[in-house]
Amino acid sequence: MTAVTYELIHVCKQTGARLGRVHTPHGSFDTPAFMPVGTQASVKGMSPDELKEVKAGIILGNTYHLYLRPGHELIKRAGGLHRFMNWDRPILTDSGGFQVFSLAKLRDIQEEGVTFQSHIDGSKHFISPEKSMEIQNALGSDIMMAFDECAPYPCDYDYAKKSMEMTTRWAIRCKQAHKNVEKQSLFGIVQGSTYADLRQESAKQLTELDFPGYAIGGLSVGEPGYIMNDILEKTTPLLPTHKPRYLMGVGSPDYLIDGSIRGVDMFDCVLPTRIGRNGTVFTSKGRIIVRDAKYAEDFSPIDTECDCYVCRNFTRGYIRHLFKSKETLGLRLATWHNLRFLLKLMEDIRKAIRNDRLMDFRNDFFRKYGYEMTTGVPLSEEDKP
Amino acid sequence: MTAVTYELIHVCKQTGARLGRVHTPHGSFDTPAFMPVGTQASVKGMSPDELKEVKAGIILGNTYHLYLRPGHELIKRAGGLHRFMNWDRPILTDSGGFQVFSLAKLRDIQEEGVTFQSHIDGSKHFISPEKSMEIQNALGSDIMMAFDECAPYPCDYDYAKKSMEMTTRWAIRCKQAHKNVEKQSLFGIVQGSTYADLRQESAKQLTELDFPGYAIGGLSVGEPGYIMNDILEKTTPLLPTHKPRYLMGVGSPDYLIDGSIRGVDMFDCVLPTRIGRNGTVFTSKGRIIVRDAKYAEDFSPIDTECDCYVCRNFTRGYIRHLFKSKETLGLRLATWHNLRFLLKLMEDIRKAIRNDRLMDFRNDFFRKYGYEMTTGVPLSEEDKP
Repeated sequence: MTAVTYELIHVCKQTGARLGRVHTPHGSFDTPAFMPVGTQASVKGMSPDELKEVKAGIILGNTYHLYLRPGHELIKRAGGLHRFMNWDRPILTDSGGFQVFSLAKLRDIQEEGVTFQSHIDGSKHFISPEKSMEIQNALGSDIMMAFDECAPYPCDYDYAKKSMEMTTRWAIRCKQAHKNVEKQSLFGIVQGSTYADLRQESAKQLTELDFPGYAIGGLSVGEPGYIMNDILEKTTPLLPTHKPRYLMGVGSPDYLIDGSIRGVDMFDCVLPTRIGRNGTVFTSKGRIIVRDAKYAEDFSPIDTECDCYVCRNFTRGYIRHLFKSKETLGLRLATWHNLRFLLKLMEDIRKAIRNDRLMDFRNDFFRKYGYEMTTGVPLSEEDKP
Repeated sequence: MTAVTYELIHVCKQTGARLGRVHTPHGSFDTPAFMPVGTQASVKGMSPDELKEVKAGIILGNTYHLYLRPGHELIKRAGGLHRFMNWDRPILTDSGGFQVFSLAKLRDIQEEGVTFQSHIDGSKHFISPEKSMEIQNALGSDIMMAFDECAPYPCDYDYAKKSMEMTTRWAIRCKQAHKNVEKQSLFGIVQGSTYADLRQESAKQLTELDFPGYAIGGLSVGEPGYIMNDILEKTTPLLPTHKPRYLMGVGSPDYLIDGSIRGVDMFDCVLPTRIGRNGTVFTSKGRIIVRDAKYAEDFSPIDTECDCYVCRNFTRGYIRHLFKSKETLGLRLATWHNLRFLLKLMEDIRKAIRNDRLMDFRNDFFRKYGYEMTTGVPLSEEDKP
């Protein structure tokens, strides 16, 4: 028995999407699930109680950031990440790989691992599969991610192939180095860029390693939505039915729905918190920039259909004033609403799966939100641009 | 019957401090009371629900800031300040005078009023007693303050006298201009700098005008504590027993206790929110700078004796990490604790008054907090420096 298990509850007859539940040492959460990102042991602007109020079932922590500051050893001495940040529900930590490639300076990728300079102070560091496991074991997350190379988009076939193969070798080393299998479960990460055969090879190699769950990495890195959906359609069927599937870095409403339709169970993204901090909020009719002057005297809630604390208590005009006045409550309220909007969307997706009508839900949502109806629709060849 | 009334419940036999209750159209609050400052329609970093969690009974709004941004007319159209910011308990607004003198550029004080430039965009404005009333009527605060001139410290006798006399003439004009006496009560402000005879004259003139409450302004502007206490001792006895007394701009624990001992019922100050944002927090053993490196591995609460949400859930080490990482949750938690610390102090002061032992409480608190025992003690001549 692994620390983390997946329970499949229902498959949507209209789409094949999966309603499920992931069980962890810190409790269970329903899937498909969206995971708010708590990069530096804090989901920006939110307290743990507020995360519970928006009904977050699991959050994500970033290994790279926590390793650099305050340091994994310190967090271990504090009793682990859950206790350090006072979050008693499940936590997933990434491997550090993505940030090493995207944030750090002067990175040097070798078979042994990656040498890089901290984006904070320029200090030199080395993270290998073994080091990533050591850090994540110290953090004590429920779900750990294998240290992988996330290839950029676009990426030529040869690089993508070599990178994918190294990711598999690193996954083996991660599995061997992981020290706490009773309390923490390690997920493998399928890579292979936009090449279906590489994705399929990666999925095959990793499922042979029998991880308790699988992520699909290297998508949502700039490629068009139809490519992502295409790759998902060719990858998720190769992953075991009885294990959770996590699509990394996805958080826009359309991608969350279309990913669910393709059998994804977990998602994460900084989108709702990042755009919230900048004054952009989701509504059922599409995004609005609530700090814009045109909302100064709009005394209606951000979204009249939203059930969140923000929409029950504050107006667009007030939130606009807070942004203009640089009051931190403004970015808090926008973040709070955005997180609840996405978590409510996941609730709606789960309900639609249960009722075998996720495609109907998708079409209603897209139409109302203002998405192009073609974007990301399960693709026939004719739909492709 | 005025909109705001004061109920005297008990006078401390040991000190003469007053336990009371102020009744307003938005409910009642116990006194002595500390009022958190919500300058721009937000107590920085706090939501209205959090203000209730720390048991704030009344908050303060700044007329100068709200007039400039978003504008009192807009707030009136939003349904008033309570509704605009979603705060259903009492609100006191200041007159705008203090900020005109301390923040605005190129101010020109005339008998008619004050011309000044906005600190935001340099635009030119004019606030008179009548204009201040118009703004505060639009905001709809429960307690409005008369437009006064707050003389600086030190201030020569002639200037202080002329300023105090103009403040009285302005108070008369405010009373005449105030349009909403059924729902809002206007307080007069005693001025006179550090001159006991001017303070007494001011108190006499204002009490003849029969305001529903009185503030003592122009203290806590840089003068030593013994001078403030001396002036208070000579002023509060001249104010009516059955009306509330408000000492403006006071918020350090010693001044709150010593002000209460001298018969003050209400206080306000940005101190707890301002120092909190900068990483300084109150503890029962004195202030600490929680963002300092020495707290990095201190996994105890800010104050083991504090009952607040922050102290029940987070450690100094975690809060220190949030400050170092520039996570806004850090300044929220420090602010939250500081407000609760002062509001709990007021609860303790009220309890000590009820038990006729406020001087004992003062001495215990000062000793533990690390205050010099002489500071601000009710003064005999020998105590004065």
